[in-house]
Amino acid sequence: MTEQSKGNGVLTTATESILSAEDIDFQLYDWLKVDELCERPRFADHSREVFDSVLEASEELAKERFATHARKSDLNEPTFDGTAVTLIPEIKSALDQFAGIGLLSATMDENVGGIQLPQTVAKACFAWFQAANIATASYPMLTMANANLLLEYGTEELIEKYVLPELDGRFFGTMCLSEPDVGSSLGDVTTKAVRDPAGGGNAFRVHGTKMWISGGDHELSENIVHLVLARAEGDQPGVKGLSLFLVPKFLVNDDGSLGERNDVVLSGLNHKMGWRGTTNTLLNFGEGTHRPAGSAGAVGYLVGERGKGLACMFHMMNEARIGVGAGAVGLGYHGYLDALRYARDRRQGRPDGAKGSDGEPIPIAEHSDVRRMLLSSKSYVEGGLGLILYAARLLDESETADSEAERDRAALLLDVLTPIVKTWPSVWCLKANDHAIQVLGGAGYTRDHDVEQLYRDNRLNPIHEGTHGIQAKDLLGRKVIMKGGAGLQVLLEQMRETLAEAADRSDWSAETAALTSAVERIESVTAAVWSSGDPTEALDNAWTYLEAVGHTVMAWLWLQQGMAAEATIGERGDSAFLKGKIAAARYFFTHELPQTGPWFDLVESRATTFTDLDDYWL
Amino acid sequence: MTEQSKGNGVLTTATESILSAEDIDFQLYDWLKVDELCERPRFADHSREVFDSVLEASEELAKERFATHARKSDLNEPTFDGTAVTLIPEIKSALDQFAGIGLLSATMDENVGGIQLPQTVAKACFAWFQAANIATASYPMLTMANANLLLEYGTEELIEKYVLPELDGRFFGTMCLSEPDVGSSLGDVTTKAVRDPAGGGNAFRVHGTKMWISGGDHELSENIVHLVLARAEGDQPGVKGLSLFLVPKFLVNDDGSLGERNDVVLSGLNHKMGWRGTTNTLLNFGEGTHRPAGSAGAVGYLVGERGKGLACMFHMMNEARIGVGAGAVGLGYHGYLDALRYARDRRQGRPDGAKGSDGEPIPIAEHSDVRRMLLSSKSYVEGGLGLILYAARLLDESETADSEAERDRAALLLDVLTPIVKTWPSVWCLKANDHAIQVLGGAGYTRDHDVEQLYRDNRLNPIHEGTHGIQAKDLLGRKVIMKGGAGLQVLLEQMRETLAEAADRSDWSAETAALTSAVERIESVTAAVWSSGDPTEALDNAWTYLEAVGHTVMAWLWLQQGMAAEATIGERGDSAFLKGKIAAARYFFTHELPQTGPWFDLVESRATTFTDLDDYWL
Repeated sequence: MTEQSKGNGVLTTATESILSAEDIDFQLYDWLKVDELCERPRFADHSREVFDSVLEASEELAKERFATHARKSDLNEPTFDGTAVTLIPEIKSALDQFAGIGLLSATMDENVGGIQLPQTVAKACFAWFQAANIATASYPMLTMANANLLLEYGTEELIEKYVLPELDGRFFGTMCLSEPDVGSSLGDVTTKAVRDPAGGGNAFRVHGTKMWISGGDHELSENIVHLVLARAEGDQPGVKGLSLFLVPKFLVNDDGSLGERNDVVLSGLNHKMGWRGTTNTLLNFGEGTHRPAGSAGAVGYLVGERGKGLACMFHMMNEARIGVGAGAVGLGYHGYLDALRYARDRRQGRPDGAKGSDGEPIPIAEHSDVRRMLLSSKSYVEGGLGLILYAARLLDESETADSEAERDRAALLLDVLTPIVKTWPSVWCLKANDHAIQVLGGAGYTRDHDVEQLYRDNRLNPIHEGTHGIQAKDLLGRKVIMKGGAGLQVLLEQMRETLAEAADRSDWSAETAALTSAVERIESVTAAVWSSGDPTEALDNAWTYLEAVGHTVMAWLWLQQGMAAEATIGERGDSAFLKGKIAAARYFFTHELPQTGPWFDLVESRATTFTDLDDYWL
Repeated sequence: MTEQSKGNGVLTTATESILSAEDIDFQLYDWLKVDELCERPRFADHSREVFDSVLEASEELAKERFATHARKSDLNEPTFDGTAVTLIPEIKSALDQFAGIGLLSATMDENVGGIQLPQTVAKACFAWFQAANIATASYPMLTMANANLLLEYGTEELIEKYVLPELDGRFFGTMCLSEPDVGSSLGDVTTKAVRDPAGGGNAFRVHGTKMWISGGDHELSENIVHLVLARAEGDQPGVKGLSLFLVPKFLVNDDGSLGERNDVVLSGLNHKMGWRGTTNTLLNFGEGTHRPAGSAGAVGYLVGERGKGLACMFHMMNEARIGVGAGAVGLGYHGYLDALRYARDRRQGRPDGAKGSDGEPIPIAEHSDVRRMLLSSKSYVEGGLGLILYAARLLDESETADSEAERDRAALLLDVLTPIVKTWPSVWCLKANDHAIQVLGGAGYTRDHDVEQLYRDNRLNPIHEGTHGIQAKDLLGRKVIMKGGAGLQVLLEQMRETLAEAADRSDWSAETAALTSAVERIESVTAAVWSSGDPTEALDNAWTYLEAVGHTVMAWLWLQQGMAAEATIGERGDSAFLKGKIAAARYFFTHELPQTGPWFDLVESRATTFTDLDDYWL
């Protein structure tokens, strides 16, 4: 990012990139005022200069070491010869550099060697890696979320032995929830843990099979720290009987050296449509291939309270859900910028209304339909980035705001928004990837261009860490009614605060009116849906509710971004970037928000089309 | 398809299939009354029994020889060693059998060895192959369209030498329009043709490069018949200077034997996201690698009138556009049935509102969100099949209706509908493929299941044979205003005829009212859009217009299918299939048609968001 491209109407870097540094700067500083966080004790040693230097280092590393092997790792999937998993060497080399500059512990406490960066800045840094190479970026994403969980719930000994090496990049982490017959329905987990009489108070032996485990085996790190959801012997069925266990690939001795090989065995690799550089595995625990001394089974250590495994896991899961949304944004953003560059370069056709083939062909970026795809994509990817950074800002507020009331309020709002943060980018930034292929036409359908892979990679995001259907139930069936509807109220209050701010900005009056109506509809439709209190009836259109609320949330954030852009023009003058920001904001109101009308109508109607259906009519 | 599965409430075959024979039967006979065509002279030798036997033979061959190598040809792309293209042997073997049972000339005149099947029946037969293996099915699709064009415009000599071997499956055909720098903008074609003084009156030599040529080279057939759009020397620029040339891979001697190798050379294969079994090529014409006797260049024969090349090509293109829509339906239908089978088999979770993990997990087909995906997919794929068969029925009417007025009317309506026939399934049946992956969850994202490939295969359909953007301009910028709006009027009249029929069916009153409004909106919005007559203004939202009219057309056809299902229940009694048909029809009205409201609003507003945008704001 050179100074030249900022604010002078000439964009160069942004359109030759995988993500826009100019947009990140705008969102962090002009909109979300992240530099103000430096006034808080936790971030007192930081400054905008520090943030910028980490952002720049991330951009550079992502472009030079992550983006550069994205296609190669797509074309050369992990292989397993029965002993070890082989990946292309560029993955390890990139990850070693990532760890080397301290990014694994970017947000963590200084006392574990962290940088104590705000979450908002760290998520922006990490977006560069997700945009560059989502598959390689998954290893640190999982490792950081795994480490965060253990820092919250692990014993000092576990932190010392397993987390600190994770933060150094020597150990990587996973989350092991699903089983071959258990996906969305975790209450049915069959993996068992039995007390290990020879071990300490938290020692167990684990037996079972876990499916879809990303990063489940590889030679990228010295050790792999699995967090495994299992049922301790004798505990009740259902989710309340689940506990969480740390099950390492290698046990760690008291002096920190690697000890015995634990009984965790790779049973097979999954072959995916995309995201191929991330090993995805079927793992057997305690089947007897390796036998650490003592009783049978994989050695595991209880993390957190017995019977509270799912609650602990959600610490990691919520982080992973935001990470999924952020990944979807990165992939969509990269595709959008590729399509934009292509559209400016590729000449084809004449303006609408021109006679025949007179004159030279024009860049396809001048055709209205191509602009439709580009402007809508811009609204999805810049809007999606805004959603992620806004969520990260809430995370910072929930951890560092001055009063407990403010911290609770931020945590509650983040909790309500999490299903949207996970889902909205997975739908709409995937749509941006779809548009990117379409802008390139036949070329976009070939493996000669990144847009082809980005589309395949992004298709995973609607599935993992809770499918769309699960997120929709989470939002309508839990989040908006929990605590007597307090979560919904805090969302509505925040939206109304923005509307109040917009009330005296006459150039946003149309948008303000439209958003006011949509906010009212969220309130009235939610009440109508739950008026009978019958979940079957209420949840029939949960997905459509998620879509409608999601688009309204995005309109709200776009109004904020639009007003921030206008304020920035007032401060620093005009630029193509800021005008584009305003155009994307207005587009979202004229072309996207109106679609919520029929969605809200449907939800409000409490139609039970799906529930009433006889399965055999399908 | 066994008798057992028809009309008794027990579906077996349909859900273990790639397409539903029961649905095809319903659409052909109960809805479109295709058996009535046998009263016309052209089809007088036929009967329902004949149609059924061809349909059954198609189903059997598609399942046993096409579906069986779909994944293998995806995993083993064509390779080119500099001399010949190698494909997996199953492709040739399947295609030889396809030709062997006469399907290549199914609709053609008896005097060229054809079966004179109605187009409606033939398209239904071919849908089996498209659902089974779109890549392998592309070779005959192109060959048949190529042959049809030549039967219309070719000389007797060309038909004798090139078309008859195509109909025997000995020669295959292509269409060569695009060039590396010319895709959607055919007026800029640079391939040149010069008179061949040594040849006959229609002999030329062709020089140029053609890109994205499907089936452009392979060893599947003895010869390849390229139809090449080129500009004869001295002819004007733009589309009016284009002519069409038959350029064979091998010249054919007067006795029908293969002669010299022509100067058409494979310069490279494209590597695609899907549809991998179809070679897609860059071809050089007349670069001197092979030198047929005489002057330089590839030997080509003028087809049709000089300067009318594009009009001739559209004979093939229109057929290909319907074929693309049909392919999208086949892929979506296959995905839907796979997802349905999986959803009935896979058990996960408990009913909404159930306590914890009490009781056994239920099949996921019982969850409302899974049903949402399945029922919407059903409405897309059965609706899409209806659109294709309705279009094919129009083709039959345009060729065989008793009066010229009826024939013209059918041809005009088909002309208006063609952009929708090409586009709607490419959007919405691809959506069904997307849903199919989602229903399978993580499993759907792996290459262990067909749904993964079907999604990748179907992503081509929005691109080839005219992108969405081109189709949208074709509909709003040409089709609905041509001949003083006669095309639009005939569509509206047909819709109103259905509405009149529905008027005394009280159980369809809600649907009738909704469709009446939507039909009125097509009329008023089209008038509003063109009220200023300025194409730039009119076409800014052409895509949204296509979406809105497309969904309205589908609602109209769903009303027809729903009423036909009800009538069938009256005749033959209830069945799960017929109840499902009615459920899908009603779903389309409650969940899909309402979405057109904001789309029509936007188009009517004549917003010029995209035209007004400064490119540098993107």
